[in-house]
Amino acid sequence: MPKFNNILIVGLGMMGGSLCKSIKKNKLSKKISAFDTDHDALSYALKNKFINYKVTDLGKMEQPDLVIICTPLSSYLSIVKKLLLKLNKNTLVTDIGSSKGGTHRTIKKLFHNSNKSFLSSHPMVGSEKSGVKFTRKDMYKNKVVFIIDKDSASRASYFKLKSFWEAIGSTTHEIDSKTHDLLMSQTSHIAHLMSFIFVKSLPQNILNDNLPLLLGGGIKEHIRLSKSNPQMWTDIFLNNKNNIIKTLTRIQKNTATIKSMIQTSNKTEIKSLLKNTYNKTK
Amino acid sequence: MPKFNNILIVGLGMMGGSLCKSIKKNKLSKKISAFDTDHDALSYALKNKFINYKVTDLGKMEQPDLVIICTPLSSYLSIVKKLLLKLNKNTLVTDIGSSKGGTHRTIKKLFHNSNKSFLSSHPMVGSEKSGVKFTRKDMYKNKVVFIIDKDSASRASYFKLKSFWEAIGSTTHEIDSKTHDLLMSQTSHIAHLMSFIFVKSLPQNILNDNLPLLLGGGIKEHIRLSKSNPQMWTDIFLNNKNNIIKTLTRIQKNTATIKSMIQTSNKTEIKSLLKNTYNKTK
Repeated sequence: MPKFNNILIVGLGMMGGSLCKSIKKNKLSKKISAFDTDHDALSYALKNKFINYKVTDLGKMEQPDLVIICTPLSSYLSIVKKLLLKLNKNTLVTDIGSSKGGTHRTIKKLFHNSNKSFLSSHPMVGSEKSGVKFTRKDMYKNKVVFIIDKDSASRASYFKLKSFWEAIGSTTHEIDSKTHDLLMSQTSHIAHLMSFIFVKSLPQNILNDNLPLLLGGGIKEHIRLSKSNPQMWTDIFLNNKNNIIKTLTRIQKNTATIKSMIQTSNKTEIKSLLKNTYNKTK
Repeated sequence: MPKFNNILIVGLGMMGGSLCKSIKKNKLSKKISAFDTDHDALSYALKNKFINYKVTDLGKMEQPDLVIICTPLSSYLSIVKKLLLKLNKNTLVTDIGSSKGGTHRTIKKLFHNSNKSFLSSHPMVGSEKSGVKFTRKDMYKNKVVFIIDKDSASRASYFKLKSFWEAIGSTTHEIDSKTHDLLMSQTSHIAHLMSFIFVKSLPQNILNDNLPLLLGGGIKEHIRLSKSNPQMWTDIFLNNKNNIIKTLTRIQKNTATIKSMIQTSNKTEIKSLLKNTYNKTK
């Protein structure tokens, strides 16, 4: 028996579309609906049968029992405002955004004031590819999903959300939003930022000559990450601004330190720094 | 028929040992000899039959027809001096080092003065793993090998070296040492350096909590690269110092630019920078 009657995915990109496919594969909902401003994406999903209904106006939808927001952060507020006009109290709303800063604080207040349920998620899942054509039904299988600020919703909402992710094949971990955002700034967000900086710093002639094709895994990984959705990552960097600035300052300090060691040919210090780095992740 | 009578590998680490296995697999030499200061590595290779002879003193070896130096750069000079005392004119010496700066200029002079043959190689091959136990017989298969400053040796030496790498399963590309070192500083070397900086900047508590295990490919790739041999990379950074300083300065400039855009919440500029990066590698 499906756990849900109607799950609504808002934002039918690679992440949202993969979620539809995973829900379908695991038979978690009688109906899968999706909203997107891109009507081609909706048609593609309908045609390929990983959604049952397309929603083109959030004011005119059938009542869902779970809504998952999968758009870039900058469209959250307008979406939430429309949802709140329409949703009843039994509907749980979650999202899969990568940072849980100011936008989430505003949204939580809106839900609290309207007496409706919101509990945020962050699946440790991703790809540099964007768009509904890159969706995969196993995208969320054997992955970790953070559930953020568990106590900001009822226990019932928490268990509903936890059991949803587990039914998809993920493992859930609880984390508070502050720790989450700091952790992301020091890992995923800074890794993406460094790849954008790496590729920006790569002279165009190297790329024109296709030389990266001759080169190793590190460079290919930077190029892959730098292909991530520009809108999505602009939103993430700004939504997690304070933590990212702190992490960037740390990176700048360490860059200056090793640059100075190389400039002065300080063999002993460089080797000791690299050895410490080597040992750090043992 | 094997092309060579006796190939000597100097430095029996992951790269040198994998070369022995590749030579054996492709039946390129009647004998495979190896020199290393680590006698355990030699015994391991003998026992596992991917070398035929161990050389513990370069002054007392059987004459090889090809020598491949696979040690960190900082031991090149003392090795070359010993080799030159012993080698005859028909022997070709090459190396697989990642930078071809000052050390190589000195070595080329020594060979030129002694009227013996040296032509440098750089296989675009590698792994963060060090040591003879991580050797693989397919390490050099379908890879690119740069042959450096082709005209610094005779045409016969060039064809000998080129046909060796092709027989191993690689494709060769010619490049001059200056272009090579600049290219490496902007790609492989800076990618490694950024990974060392990334891991150095990672707070220890994240590592202690094993949180990287929860996280994505970008971080795993940084951690993997930061595991690369500290001695080898110290030598590379110092041997390619001027180019690396230039590339680091470029990275620092771009880091400061994007940091300032984030600090001032300049959404339009960040998005445009990320979009340009996205398009750059199309």
